[in-house]
Amino acid sequence: MTDRPIITLLTDFGWGDGYIGAMKGVMLQINPDCRIIDLTHEIPPHDVMGAALVLGQTYPFFPSGTIHVAVVDPGVGGPRRPLVLETEGYRFVGPDNGCFTFVLKREEEKQAYELIEERFHLPRVSHTFHGRDIFAPVAAHLSKGVPPAEMGPPIEITDLTSLPIPDPMTEGETLRGEVIGVDSFGNLVTNISRDIMEAFAPDEVVEIEIGGKRIRGLRSSYEEGRTGEVIALWGSAGLLEISLKERSLHRERGWGRGEHVHIRRGK
Amino acid sequence: MTDRPIITLLTDFGWGDGYIGAMKGVMLQINPDCRIIDLTHEIPPHDVMGAALVLGQTYPFFPSGTIHVAVVDPGVGGPRRPLVLETEGYRFVGPDNGCFTFVLKREEEKQAYELIEERFHLPRVSHTFHGRDIFAPVAAHLSKGVPPAEMGPPIEITDLTSLPIPDPMTEGETLRGEVIGVDSFGNLVTNISRDIMEAFAPDEVVEIEIGGKRIRGLRSSYEEGRTGEVIALWGSAGLLEISLKERSLHRERGWGRGEHVHIRRGK
Amino acid sequence: MTDRPIITLLTDFGWGDGYIGAMKGVMLQINPDCRIIDLTHEIPPHDVMGAALVLGQTYPFFPSGTIHVAVVDPGVGGPRRPLVLETEGYRFVGPDNGCFTFVLKREEEKQAYELIEERFHLPRVSHTFHGRDIFAPVAAHLSKGVPPAEMGPPIEITDLTSLPIPDPMTEGETLRGEVIGVDSFGNLVTNISRDIMEAFAPDEVVEIEIGGKRIRGLRSSYEEGRTGEVIALWGSAGLLEISLKERSLHRERGWGRGEHVHIRRGK
Repeated sequence: MTDRPIITLLTDFGWGDGYIGAMKGVMLQINPDCRIIDLTHEIPPHDVMGAALVLGQTYPFFPSGTIHVAVVDPGVGGPRRPLVLETEGYRFVGPDNGCFTFVLKREEEKQAYELIEERFHLPRVSHTFHGRDIFAPVAAHLSKGVPPAEMGPPIEITDLTSLPIPDPMTEGETLRGEVIGVDSFGNLVTNISRDIMEAFAPDEVVEIEIGGKRIRGLRSSYEEGRTGEVIALWGSAGLLEISLKERSLHRERGWGRGEHVHIRRGK
Repeated sequence: MTDRPIITLLTDFGWGDGYIGAMKGVMLQINPDCRIIDLTHEIPPHDVMGAALVLGQTYPFFPSGTIHVAVVDPGVGGPRRPLVLETEGYRFVGPDNGCFTFVLKREEEKQAYELIEERFHLPRVSHTFHGRDIFAPVAAHLSKGVPPAEMGPPIEITDLTSLPIPDPMTEGETLRGEVIGVDSFGNLVTNISRDIMEAFAPDEVVEIEIGGKRIRGLRSSYEEGRTGEVIALWGSAGLLEISLKERSLHRERGWGRGEHVHIRRGK
Repeated sequence: MTDRPIITLLTDFGWGDGYIGAMKGVMLQINPDCRIIDLTHEIPPHDVMGAALVLGQTYPFFPSGTIHVAVVDPGVGGPRRPLVLETEGYRFVGPDNGCFTFVLKREEEKQAYELIEERFHLPRVSHTFHGRDIFAPVAAHLSKGVPPAEMGPPIEITDLTSLPIPDPMTEGETLRGEVIGVDSFGNLVTNISRDIMEAFAPDEVVEIEIGGKRIRGLRSSYEEGRTGEVIALWGSAGLLEISLKERSLHRERGWGRGEHVHIRRGK
């Protein structure tokens, strides 16, 4: 690993501009041996929650030692801190604005440092593109073995920014959750995990209601059900998903993030 | 090659989600030395024919030993089989749903195996994301030298799923073909190859009719003809293409896959 | 570097087809050790100026020795020359149609050669896809150490195609510039550099007018100003940018390339 370290990139820059290319160039110039892996550059512009979700679903699959760079940064040039976050297996580089919400939730061991040591940045740092001027060079220096603690002073973990993730709530006979993300097939990802569902309705058939539509029971795969039928199933991240078979539920019904989902026990 | 094996990825996941990143992480965790090459992730959702066409136009250019992973998989979690297909130069990993139609057409030597050996999958296989849970880890294990035959029992080649590719037909004085694909410039790719055309009209000028529009003769490049003129020419894959100079014929006329093309000998 | 040389790719092919995959395969077949870095494949189709801008903002960040391939090539198959352009740190491969405008502007040392030596091309060169048939194999051969001068005869640098870049002009009390590009956030990039601005209005507050809208003074980052406010600031490439905070100015006002920008000294 160490001789050809892996750096992943997740941004909202889109593929159309020179932003991604510039970041890759900066990293390769500092460490020609690093391997850059594109996670995605198509987070919707300024959607920090979207970045947090995709990073959270992705980073644990990478080998130990991987450096993850996440730059969805509407506050670039403002007071939000640039940081490196170190966990047992990984290092994360990006703005302290909530991009690492799910990393903070999941990881036990963690230290964070504010990126103020300018010798690890580009010589002239712009106010508009810290991806190229701070985060890319810092990631490349980390990949060469510079310890995170040399990048700047430590930040208290409790001081780091986390986005509020709504927890599902039980009200009488109803479990209330909501949609927290939409994937590129138009499937809706909710905040209802298997554990929560099992605590609410162990071994029972449930009825799921979303936007006035009632769905009885869960399917075990997208393959079940008829074309055009709204189905519910456990997605690959262990969260309840609502899907329109072979079509985009998001586009056809307009349901998206924040849409309420009600679960009731079946009879 | 063997110390840094190449794995290509072709999916319909789009770049917007964590799907691609998760697959890359899984492969790099199993074989940190593999090199992952993105072919495309923008096959239209569930378009198996589109995946087959792009893979067919692409795979033969790669060096011998390359592993090609194709995941356009509307039937994930259903009865369709996950497979590895081995040919003289390559190994292909994906669902047995027609993604490998053009590979099966072109390659002489081939063996296929059903991917049932769970020690080469992720420990918990979801019903919704075999790309991450089966195809990515299998490709990574292949790249480390595991023989395809260890992945599961052989499948008869004649049992594999191929999509019906319409053959052009001669009816009296007319050669009838059709559009089988549209590229990102809006050019229409037909099923009429050079060989078929030469057999039909050796050394003769032809008239091409599509959607009521008649085109006389073929151009040798996109550069010929006037802006906005509908032209016919041999595309880079050796198939007849119909194009609107410097604009998208697909968008402006609405012609797409399945549109009939009639060829008549010129006078 | 030389044992794992870097080749960057910039095209208008989009990610949806097999074009990019075919180019990558060709390069890896000729030089299995090359590392291919995607800059972008989403230059708007046939937008040579867009390609020139993105390449110009990107290439200088790469390590010395990098080979940059740029294929936005509406004239493929026509009389425009395929070329390799060698500078002090880089080699550039693509059509002689203006893609390298900003490289030619910036670099002192340069030699160019027309790509006519067919032993460095694919055996059968199509009229429609020089990216795969000429530019990809040439780049791969360069990455193996073939000197550019072996690729074909030299071309006079003054014979190379450059796109006209409008220079800002001072008329009386007004500095007139224009928008030369739009980034994926909808920010407008103008042709007014810091140097030009400082010569026009040293140490003075300026008023910027675009499309009837007047903006007083420059901000130092996107973070300043209110949501929905039109602001002006120095972009990461050192050019004046006009931006709508947290939204797309391009989409909301319809201003794009060619839009006039007038600067007046403040009082």
